[in-house]
Amino acid sequence: MVAMDRSTNPSAQGSKSPRPAAAADASVDNTAASGAVVGSDFLQLDIGEAPPSGRTAWLADRLRSAIADGRLPIGARLPASRVLAEELRVTRGVVTEAYRRLAESGQIAGRGRLGTVVVAAPTAPRDHARDAAGPAGAGAGAGPALFGSGDRDGLIDALRALPCRIDLSPGVPDLAAFPRTGWLRAERAVLAGVGPADFGYGDPRGAPALRRAVVGWLARNRGIRADPEDVVVVAGVAQALGLLGQILRADGIHRIAVEDPGSLGARQQLEYVGHAVVPVPVDAGGLDVGALRASGARAVLLTPAHQFPTGVVLDGERRRELLSWAAEGGVVIEDDYDAEHRYDRPPVPALRSLLPDGVCYAGSVSKLLAPALRVGWLLVPPDRRDALVTAKRYADLGNGVLTQLVLARLMDSGELERHLRHVRQRHRRRRDVMLRAIDRHLPGARVHGAAAGLHLMVTFSDPRGGARDSGFRDTDLAAAALSRGVKVHPLSWHRITPGPPGLVLGYAAGPAHEIDEGIAVIGAALRHLLP
Amino acid sequence: MVAMDRSTNPSAQGSKSPRPAAAADASVDNTAASGAVVGSDFLQLDIGEAPPSGRTAWLADRLRSAIADGRLPIGARLPASRVLAEELRVTRGVVTEAYRRLAESGQIAGRGRLGTVVVAAPTAPRDHARDAAGPAGAGAGAGPALFGSGDRDGLIDALRALPCRIDLSPGVPDLAAFPRTGWLRAERAVLAGVGPADFGYGDPRGAPALRRAVVGWLARNRGIRADPEDVVVVAGVAQALGLLGQILRADGIHRIAVEDPGSLGARQQLEYVGHAVVPVPVDAGGLDVGALRASGARAVLLTPAHQFPTGVVLDGERRRELLSWAAEGGVVIEDDYDAEHRYDRPPVPALRSLLPDGVCYAGSVSKLLAPALRVGWLLVPPDRRDALVTAKRYADLGNGVLTQLVLARLMDSGELERHLRHVRQRHRRRRDVMLRAIDRHLPGARVHGAAAGLHLMVTFSDPRGGARDSGFRDTDLAAAALSRGVKVHPLSWHRITPGPPGLVLGYAAGPAHEIDEGIAVIGAALRHLLP
Repeated sequence: MVAMDRSTNPSAQGSKSPRPAAAADASVDNTAASGAVVGSDFLQLDIGEAPPSGRTAWLADRLRSAIADGRLPIGARLPASRVLAEELRVTRGVVTEAYRRLAESGQIAGRGRLGTVVVAAPTAPRDHARDAAGPAGAGAGAGPALFGSGDRDGLIDALRALPCRIDLSPGVPDLAAFPRTGWLRAERAVLAGVGPADFGYGDPRGAPALRRAVVGWLARNRGIRADPEDVVVVAGVAQALGLLGQILRADGIHRIAVEDPGSLGARQQLEYVGHAVVPVPVDAGGLDVGALRASGARAVLLTPAHQFPTGVVLDGERRRELLSWAAEGGVVIEDDYDAEHRYDRPPVPALRSLLPDGVCYAGSVSKLLAPALRVGWLLVPPDRRDALVTAKRYADLGNGVLTQLVLARLMDSGELERHLRHVRQRHRRRRDVMLRAIDRHLPGARVHGAAAGLHLMVTFSDPRGGARDSGFRDTDLAAAALSRGVKVHPLSWHRITPGPPGLVLGYAAGPAHEIDEGIAVIGAALRHLLP
Repeated sequence: MVAMDRSTNPSAQGSKSPRPAAAADASVDNTAASGAVVGSDFLQLDIGEAPPSGRTAWLADRLRSAIADGRLPIGARLPASRVLAEELRVTRGVVTEAYRRLAESGQIAGRGRLGTVVVAAPTAPRDHARDAAGPAGAGAGAGPALFGSGDRDGLIDALRALPCRIDLSPGVPDLAAFPRTGWLRAERAVLAGVGPADFGYGDPRGAPALRRAVVGWLARNRGIRADPEDVVVVAGVAQALGLLGQILRADGIHRIAVEDPGSLGARQQLEYVGHAVVPVPVDAGGLDVGALRASGARAVLLTPAHQFPTGVVLDGERRRELLSWAAEGGVVIEDDYDAEHRYDRPPVPALRSLLPDGVCYAGSVSKLLAPALRVGWLLVPPDRRDALVTAKRYADLGNGVLTQLVLARLMDSGELERHLRHVRQRHRRRRDVMLRAIDRHLPGARVHGAAAGLHLMVTFSDPRGGARDSGFRDTDLAAAALSRGVKVHPLSWHRITPGPPGLVLGYAAGPAHEIDEGIAVIGAALRHLLP
C-alpha cells in the first residue's frame, strides 16, 4: 500500500456499520448545522493549542499578533462571533470577550453592517504606494530615461505604467465607450442560463457558443468562412503569437520574418519563445514579398489589412505573390489586429478568406471593445490544429468562461457591430482632430496611415529642407514629450533597420481637446530639440 | 522614406489648410452623421464593384451568395436597411428592394424586433453536431477505449468531453452553489466603478485590487504574509506550473521531482515545457524527503496540505526536512490546490508561511468557486520575480480584468469566505454519503484521504484475502464504470511507479443520490470484472 492516510475512515476498511462516518471518528457529525470542523481557516486558529481555561486570552493574543504583523491590515473584517465560535467549537462568549478586549485597546471596532473591522495601524505598515509604481523596472523616476533602453523586455509595459497627463500611445480604442450596460445585461442573461457544468473545466479551445459566434463574426465582417472546429479562443493576439511560436519551433522553424517597421510587442513575443526575427521591408504596397523569399525564412508574421505602424494595405499583386509563397509551403501568420476600424476606404478582406487552409489567422476584441478583456481567436490550417489545441491546453486549460459567454451574446445579438459603428464615428472625428493638430503644430511632419485604424504614424524630414537627416532622435522627442506629460511611441521602437525619426500616435482613446493639446506639446518639445 | 501611404492626408505634407481632412480627400467628411465610410464591413461589400445602374441587383446577388456559401447561416441577422444604406452610400430604397427580393424567394424574413434574419438553409449546411463532440481526439465512441491510452496529451480533457450520467471525476467543487447573485451584484459595482483606463492594457501581474485582496485572503486563510508586489495573478494553477517550468528551464533546471502517486495533469504540464519528472514516493507522512535528496533533483512540486490523490498531510518532521533542503538551494513548488476544504481536522498552514522567501506558492479559485473562471495566483521568491513577470507578460499580457475585479470584491467583502463555509457543509455531507456507499457497495475497498478536500482515493486488495494482487486493472474498472455511465479516474493515471489498483473519486460536484448510485454502479462493474 503506497499511501497510509491517518485520516482514513476506519469503518470503510471492513466494518459493516451503515453509518461509518459517525461511528469511529468523534469529530464527524452528520448534522449539517453543527459545524463539525476543528479549528478555523481564519488565521489558521487551532483551538487545540489553547489552554482549556484560557481560551479567551489565547484568542485575543492570536488576533493581536495578526494585527501587529500585518496579516490583518487596517480595514480587514473579522468573522462574525457566532461563526468563529462555531468553527472553534467554543462558546460565543469566548469570541465576543476576545473581540471586546481588542476593541478596548483600540485595535478593532464595530462598523454596523460592515461587522467588526481592524482600525489600528499595524506596527509594520505595508507600502501600498510601491504597488502603484507598476511592473518591475517601471518605478517612478524611470521616466524619460526609459526611451534609451533599447528593446528590452517590458519596455512597453514600463511606459504604460508611467503616469502622464495625455496618453497618445497607439493600440487602444475609445475605452470610455465600453458598453457597460449592455455587458451587464448580457452577463445577467449568461448567469441565468448556464448550467453547473459550465463552471467546471471546459474545452481548452474555448466555449462552443463563442466559437460559433466568432465564426459568424468573421463571416460577416472579415469575409472568412470557417467552422467552429477551426477556432481556438485565446487570451488576445499576444497569446496567439506565443502559441504559434511554440508550435512552429516544435516543427523545426526557428526564424520568422516580420515587417520592418513592425510591431515591437509582436517581435518580442516571438523572440521570447525562441525565434530569431528576420526583418523584411515594408513599402507603399506592404510587405516586400520578394525580400521575404530572399530571406529564406519559412514563416512570416504580417498585418495585411492595416500594416502596423505604417498603415499601408498589402496590395493585390503582393497578395498574389504571398499566397503563392504560402502554397509552396511558407507559413503565413495574419495579425488582423484592427481591420474593423476604417474611415475613408473600402474594407479589405482577410488573407485567410483567400486561402483558408494556408493561413494562420489571429484577431481579438482588444481593438473592438477593450484590451483588458484578453480575448481573441486563432485559426490555423488543419495540419497544425492538434498541436495548437495541445499548446493552449498546457498554457492555461482555456480562457475564462463568463467573459467568453458574454462576448458570444454581444456578437450574436448584433450589439458588438452596433458598438463598432458607434465608436467608428468617434474615432473618425478624433482622427480628424489629430490631423488638423499635426498640420498646425508639426509642420515638418509627414502623416501615414490615416485612412484606417486607431493610430497614425508621422515621420520627420529636416525642417530646414534639403538635408536627408532631420537631426534628432525620435526617442529624444518621445522623452521630451513625456517630460511634458504626453506619452507617445517613438517610431524607432518599431523599427529593426534604422530609418528616419518618427512617432506612432494613437488618437482613439482620448477626447479631442487632449489630442490637440498633446500634439501642441509635442510640437513645442520638437522645437526645443532642434538646433 | 520607408513607407509611402496612398491614404496619407496630403494637406499634412505642407499645406496650411486648417481643414486638411476635408480638403484633399473627397471621401472624408467632418460631419459625424453623414457616415462617410466607403463600403461596409458587413460581407465586405464594396459599392465600387456595383454597376451604377444595377446596385439593387448587385446587392441582392451578394446576399444570395453569402447565404448559399454559409457565410450567412440560418438565423443570421442582416443590418438594418438604414444602416447598410448609409455605409454603402446608396439610397435606402436600394437596400429595402434587395431585401424584398430575397424575402420573396424565401431566403430572409422580417422577425419584428429581431430585425431581418436568414431563414433558408444554405446549400452546404454546417455540421454543428461535430462541434459538440469535444476536443480533438475525444469524438463519440472513444469511450472506454480511452483508459488504455496511457498518459498521452489531452487524456483528461478527452474524458471530460465524453458524455456520462454521473460524473465522479475529482477536482471540482459544488458548482451548482456558484454564487450567481453575488457575482452579478459585484460585477455591477465593478462596471459602475472602473475608469476607462481599466479597460486598456494593464499590469501583466494582474489588477492591483485583486493582488491586494489575494494578500488578505492568504493572510486570513493560509497563514501567509505577503505583499501585493509578491503576487502574480495567473490563469489557474495550470498556468502557474507552465510559467514556473519555463523559468526554471531558463535557469538550467530540467528535472523536477513530483509526488508518486501525484497529479497526472500537473506532471503533463511540466513535461510539456520540457522537464523530465522524477517520481518520489509518498507515504503516510507525505513526500519522502530522503528519497527526494537521493534523486538529485533540484526542484520539487508537491501538495503538502492535502496530497493529491492520497489525501495525506506532509507531517512536521518532513516539513522540517524539506525546508532545510530548500534552504540549501532546492526549489520547492507548493501546489495549495484545495487546502481550504477540510472537515475533520485542523487547518494546515502553507509551507510558504514557514519560509516566505524559499517557496514558490500556487493557488486558485478553481476549488473555491469554479475552475471555469481560470484565475489563480503565484508567489515566488524575490530572485525569480522578474523572470516570472516576463513569462506572464509573454504568455498573455495578464489575465482579463473584469473577472479579477469581481473576485477582488468577493474576497474583500467576505462573501467568498461565506461561500466557502456554505459549500464546506454541503461537501461534507456528500463525503459522508460516499463513505457510506463505499462501505455498502465496495466492501474490498480501502478509503484514503477522507478528512479534507473534494475527492477521496480508494485502493483494492484481493477481495478473497491473502493474495497481494487484486487481479484486475483499475483502467478496466474505470472503463467498465464509464460503459455503465459513471465517470471516474483510475488511480494508475496518477501513478508513475505501478501499484495496487484504485480509483480517485470526486464527491463534491453532484447530489447525494448520484453519489450513491455511482458507487453502486462501480460495485457492479467490479463484481463483473473479478473472476
